Amino acid sequence: MQMPETVATPSVVVDVDVLERNVERAARAARDGGFALRPHAKTHKCPRIAALQLRAGARGLTVATVGEAEVFAAAGVDDLFVAYPLWVDGDKGRRLRRLAGSVALRVGVDSAEGAAQLGAAVRGSARPVGVSVEIDSGHHRTGVRPDGAVAVARAAAEAGLAVEGVFTFPGHGYGHDPQARERAARDEERALGEAAGALRAAGFGPLVVSGGSTPTAGAWRPGTVDELRPGVYVFNDAAQLALGSCRPEDVALAVAATVVSVPGPDRFVLDAGSKVLGADTSPWVDGHGYLPGFPGAVVSALSEHHATVRLPAGARAPRPGSRVAVVPVHVCSTVNLVDELVAVRGGEVVDRWPVAARGANT
Amino acid sequence: MQMPETVATPSVVVDVDVLERNVERAARAARDGGFALRPHAKTHKCPRIAALQLRAGARGLTVATVGEAEVFAAAGVDDLFVAYPLWVDGDKGRRLRRLAGSVALRVGVDSAEGAAQLGAAVRGSARPVGVSVEIDSGHHRTGVRPDGAVAVARAAAEAGLAVEGVFTFPGHGYGHDPQARERAARDEERALGEAAGALRAAGFGPLVVSGGSTPTAGAWRPGTVDELRPGVYVFNDAAQLALGSCRPEDVALAVAATVVSVPGPDRFVLDAGSKVLGADTSPWVDGHGYLPGFPGAVVSALSEHHATVRLPAGARAPRPGSRVAVVPVHVCSTVNLVDELVAVRGGEVVDRWPVAARGANT
Repeated sequence: MQMPETVATPSVVVDVDVLERNVERAARAARDGGFALRPHAKTHKCPRIAALQLRAGARGLTVATVGEAEVFAAAGVDDLFVAYPLWVDGDKGRRLRRLAGSVALRVGVDSAEGAAQLGAAVRGSARPVGVSVEIDSGHHRTGVRPDGAVAVARAAAEAGLAVEGVFTFPGHGYGHDPQARERAARDEERALGEAAGALRAAGFGPLVVSGGSTPTAGAWRPGTVDELRPGVYVFNDAAQLALGSCRPEDVALAVAATVVSVPGPDRFVLDAGSKVLGADTSPWVDGHGYLPGFPGAVVSALSEHHATVRLPAGARAPRPGSRVAVVPVHVCSTVNLVDELVAVRGGEVVDRWPVAARGANT
Repeated sequence: MQMPETVATPSVVVDVDVLERNVERAARAARDGGFALRPHAKTHKCPRIAALQLRAGARGLTVATVGEAEVFAAAGVDDLFVAYPLWVDGDKGRRLRRLAGSVALRVGVDSAEGAAQLGAAVRGSARPVGVSVEIDSGHHRTGVRPDGAVAVARAAAEAGLAVEGVFTFPGHGYGHDPQARERAARDEERALGEAAGALRAAGFGPLVVSGGSTPTAGAWRPGTVDELRPGVYVFNDAAQLALGSCRPEDVALAVAATVVSVPGPDRFVLDAGSKVLGADTSPWVDGHGYLPGFPGAVVSALSEHHATVRLPAGARAPRPGSRVAVVPVHVCSTVNLVDELVAVRGGEVVDRWPVAARGANT
């Protein structure tokens, strides 16, 4: 990726040609496999990119918070899944009722208590709020085991909610080993299939069976699952690159940084720190980012406005003032730190896209 | 800290009584030691807190970026030090000239090239822009060694800049060992003293000799250094607590979170993830935050909207829907993720303070 010389650094730059290819490739793969695609918008938080995904055939969007749902509903997206076991505090009940009046709304649930309070909070909304029961397929974060799905679904139905499906996040599919990804996809199919089967036997249905992540995207087989929710694939990042779930030419986002200091021949310091890259680390990435222009270089230390880059033996440090592209470890954090994305084609700035759902945590 | 029941979670809550005590204690310590205090505003990014610091006697503020300087200048702060070796790209030259017309402005510099381009960029500003030469006192990030200070100062003077001082950041003073902090403070005095001595011998002066960080604050001796720049002390965080640079009752900020899932008797999941806590880790903190209400609990995993808390043997998991306070590992990242701080006294919301410089990276 070529960094435009005109923008102030640090800025977050998106190569629109690469982005469009990534969006189209995933849409085609989903279509070919017979899956509906419901991309997770928490990665980009950007209505302009959501529009590309929907135009390419996405069924709707996945979001993580009520605030994200509100931003995309306001931008005209009419089918939203909050894939999170929401607890409805503050004024979230009122906000959910208003959302349900204007879009098809589905919310995650993973406990009878959660179902009861959600049902009470959205009572009286113009249209019923759908729920999807979260299943733990091996990542051990939120979600119930498959054999717990029916109890949660019954509590939801008693609370006046429409039980519309089951979902999982196969976070344990993040690993170097392609076989681990394959196994995670199979775990997911097995867990979702078992939960959906139990729900159907208990009289629930029709059900949307929803899974998927960017690393497991290639491992899907038609059959059990009918909806996929990858997020990171639009941009990719250093972690996805290290995992082998994308190629270097599929990376659509980098932070444009400037060399501000060259304290020695083997290292230099950039003005992109954790306040723009994010402080996320990954067991698969050495250091705090990936520098496409400096093979073998490692971002060995990151503070709020400094990235210290260590060069391999024999490499030459750039001059102060040089412009350098840094691919973040975890792109979802990077995007959430800025108000706009600088859209480029062929290194030229063509637009600036507001990150409209930045900071929409509640 | 008592979390208010009324705010939507996750929200960032500041206990104003504790904050005021922290501000007053640092102001008194600086006054008693004969140091000027120039707090680093990158921690709070909040004009309301800057006003408290200035009212308590701070000489001015330290900031990290031109954007932060603009926010505090607009809020009426008239003495600002950008403690960073700026490279003036994009329209930063114009912005710096405008700032220099309205406030006393000092900027960091650590190379002859940096001084030359800064001087060229601010030529023609209504008032001269001052510079302070950054010295590496052992942290090995940016900065020149003390014997390199004169060359940088001469380049700055040739570029039309007013050489006003030397500064350092003793990042290597972050460590468990009180003797390490003591040694870092002595390193700092030695490095700054040597650099300032060389500059004075070369005809530069008067000079502001500026150092300090929150962990080394207790280790200062009057003499060489005359200005201190701690930042984190206003709030403190889990890292400062682990380092012993504050007591539990000095922690003024926590994220109010809700228990959204209790997947087992030994763990629970909160709705506060890396998008509000920040993904920063610390070698001195076990896990991703500190839970004052759950002794021995560890935030064992953090994703964007989930914190998984592991309980010690025998502890009882809270009910779903319970409200829990999480003290972040690194508070500067947390504040930069939200648009406002919820100000409380005795657990009651008294105000909401805009984080006006949030995201001001350029």
